[in-house]
Amino acid sequence: MIKISVTLLTFLFSMAVKAQDDSTMIKKITDDVLTNGKAYEYLRVLCKDVGPRLSGSPQAAKAVNVTKKMMEDLKVDKVWLQECMVPHWVRGKKEEAKIIFKDGKTYKLDVTALGNSIGTGDKGVKANVIEVKNFDELNKLGEKVIKGNIVFYNFPMNPTYINTFRAYGESGRYRFNGPSQAAKYGAVGCIVRSLASNVNDYPHTGVMGYNDSFPKIPAVAISTLDANYLSTALKNKTEKQVFFRTNCQMLDSVKSYNVIGEIRGTEFPDEIITVGGHLDSWDLAEGAHDDGSGCVQSIEVLRVFQALGIKPKRTIRAVMFMNEENGGKGGDKYYEEAKAKGEKHIFAMESDEGGFTPRGFGVSGNKEAVAKIMSWANLFRPYGVNDIHEGGGGADIGDLKNLGTVLSNIYPDSQRYFDIHHAATDTFEAVSERELKLAAAMMASMIYLVDKYGL
Amino acid sequence: MIKISVTLLTFLFSMAVKAQDDSTMIKKITDDVLTNGKAYEYLRVLCKDVGPRLSGSPQAAKAVNVTKKMMEDLKVDKVWLQECMVPHWVRGKKEEAKIIFKDGKTYKLDVTALGNSIGTGDKGVKANVIEVKNFDELNKLGEKVIKGNIVFYNFPMNPTYINTFRAYGESGRYRFNGPSQAAKYGAVGCIVRSLASNVNDYPHTGVMGYNDSFPKIPAVAISTLDANYLSTALKNKTEKQVFFRTNCQMLDSVKSYNVIGEIRGTEFPDEIITVGGHLDSWDLAEGAHDDGSGCVQSIEVLRVFQALGIKPKRTIRAVMFMNEENGGKGGDKYYEEAKAKGEKHIFAMESDEGGFTPRGFGVSGNKEAVAKIMSWANLFRPYGVNDIHEGGGGADIGDLKNLGTVLSNIYPDSQRYFDIHHAATDTFEAVSERELKLAAAMMASMIYLVDKYGL
Repeated sequence: MIKISVTLLTFLFSMAVKAQDDSTMIKKITDDVLTNGKAYEYLRVLCKDVGPRLSGSPQAAKAVNVTKKMMEDLKVDKVWLQECMVPHWVRGKKEEAKIIFKDGKTYKLDVTALGNSIGTGDKGVKANVIEVKNFDELNKLGEKVIKGNIVFYNFPMNPTYINTFRAYGESGRYRFNGPSQAAKYGAVGCIVRSLASNVNDYPHTGVMGYNDSFPKIPAVAISTLDANYLSTALKNKTEKQVFFRTNCQMLDSVKSYNVIGEIRGTEFPDEIITVGGHLDSWDLAEGAHDDGSGCVQSIEVLRVFQALGIKPKRTIRAVMFMNEENGGKGGDKYYEEAKAKGEKHIFAMESDEGGFTPRGFGVSGNKEAVAKIMSWANLFRPYGVNDIHEGGGGADIGDLKNLGTVLSNIYPDSQRYFDIHHAATDTFEAVSERELKLAAAMMASMIYLVDKYGL
Repeated sequence: MIKISVTLLTFLFSMAVKAQDDSTMIKKITDDVLTNGKAYEYLRVLCKDVGPRLSGSPQAAKAVNVTKKMMEDLKVDKVWLQECMVPHWVRGKKEEAKIIFKDGKTYKLDVTALGNSIGTGDKGVKANVIEVKNFDELNKLGEKVIKGNIVFYNFPMNPTYINTFRAYGESGRYRFNGPSQAAKYGAVGCIVRSLASNVNDYPHTGVMGYNDSFPKIPAVAISTLDANYLSTALKNKTEKQVFFRTNCQMLDSVKSYNVIGEIRGTEFPDEIITVGGHLDSWDLAEGAHDDGSGCVQSIEVLRVFQALGIKPKRTIRAVMFMNEENGGKGGDKYYEEAKAKGEKHIFAMESDEGGFTPRGFGVSGNKEAVAKIMSWANLFRPYGVNDIHEGGGGADIGDLKNLGTVLSNIYPDSQRYFDIHHAATDTFEAVSERELKLAAAMMASMIYLVDKYGL
């Protein structure tokens, strides 16, 4: 009996010491990031010196060079570019849109073409507008009502969902599939209410996709304020039409790159831990939260490992994925090459939900790994990070699950994200230095634990 | 045995039903606030139509009328003004400050007089500057070094504290007590590094207090950017002085008011539940987070009760306290009148930590009451509110503890607060509608539970 107790005590004691060590290390990491971290300065460079970084644009190319240099300056073991072909959609001249009333008066709409949409041509589109709340309404109206008209999807984000991504997912269908669904019934154009959680005059862009079974029609989003205005105007019986002109087009794909920086593992160099964000952004804004933040946080993980002299057992890679917004070609390439080379990716974390206060992590993968990660929950609580939940990953790392990789995402507070997401308001000024850094520190701490204990 | 089990089952079932009812009601409250809430519009009015609301100013008087009207429009049972005398400190003409180098060149400092400070007079103050990190350094230098000079407290907020209020508390001593401590050794002026968690060119004001044992010397804060600059400049041996001129003065106290709105309890009208924020703000900005947010959230509590037809058993009061920033006279008056009238205040909650995402509540009071409130923790978790901790209250409600009142505060995410606190950047635009409303919903939910179950 005594022997068992001693064994047990020894075990418990060693566990306690371990937890103590880990909490000390996490504090050290966090203190350093909050005090000496460079994520905010990196973000300033990405937002202000580079600017919007749509795939295929000169700024996207510049962002590749700039982030490569940032990681080289950290003197990590290896920094390289991973080539990938990306779609090259260009907006062209700024869009215009207006309501034309019967008496000839007009009301200017704040508008943006949706990503990957065709343009209207010089003549634009002018037609009556049929407002629908959802696909059910559209389907009920059918070709008889829709044909020759513009369809206006006025589906607001549900304000009662506490996790705003849930509301985004629900509304997102209208932006992505709405144009082709409308074209199915003969619509000549598509207007979507911006996917935004606030009501103001900024239109929010985002990707749409055509269903090849139907004609391609031009698609735009209007601001939530104008969506409300248009909806009210349509209820008024006075005859009215909407005109819009967009000048966007899809050009030939171009060569681009993922940017990868690596600290090689000392014991298990073949076990790879990836942390990343996406380097491309929409062209309307600086892509500060989406997803400059994820990129600079990932570089910060390397920085703090280097600064504190942490020599990981496993290989840690920070990856700036290209083309998440309108193609996902960077993520595809990273996965394909990993698979082709037979790389062992044990863990991948993406940060692509904005650089806000960290609230938790999502985790997906084999049960033991998820349980192990959840067993570290107490280590994160002192930082207000108390929501480690099952179900995690990100658009750029999703395919790695086919390699058995445990997927994760940092889960930030989501209340403000869709106020600025994909709009001109997603600027450096909208990011809080402390929030950005605190989340980076939590990411580095999680990577530290995964590296230390393996999965 | 069976009988006991049935009893137990019945009990457990009734508990489960109760919890179910409560969670349904909290969701109803929250849905309504997020969908129909007026807190954000109220805040716009307070920030944009009224503006800065320093005690004794015309805007503070306007804010009294405006918030009185807001509550009257809700058709609550009673809205009234509670008279109190408040200090009337005025800034006068904008301050100026500069470093004067030996060669006559100057560097302009971004400066603000500290609240309640005397002014310098037309001639200003010009002297050598002694930088100290803390009181220990000041005391070591003593009169020999300090006399005739300006003392510059360069104590930064500690970036490693996750709860930024801890850092504020630590630094706040230099702003509040620093001038008199310096005067003790013969200083002729006092400069404080702004209490800010970021580095930029906005000076942050805030209250200071004179110790009557020492001469009153003028006190200012400079921006964190300029504090860094001045510190660097002082390390350079070239002779230099600092000049500053402030035009502030304390005038005679004036009559002002707390604004109180009340829904009378149906069962226990004599048991009073208070929820409040402070109506006054510093004069540099719109006082959006500090503390327009707390005011409009408190009014929102009344609004949602009225909108959902919730008839509280106990009396619910929303109180806009006057003069929290530089005197606390409104809070004093509320307590004194409550005491004089023998009112039974069972619970008081203050919101004065910014209108950010709610993370929890602080609670202070008798053990049973605290335990009861903590037993409701699970009801708040679906809203990301998972930190109900012991130790709560607020400057305006603190004295109520003498009446046995259970004190509480909503505990918002604190990462951004001290970027803008008491500076020109505390504007309506810095407040997120969803964050503000979500916190208001949580406040209303807590008030709902306290009313339903009593304490």
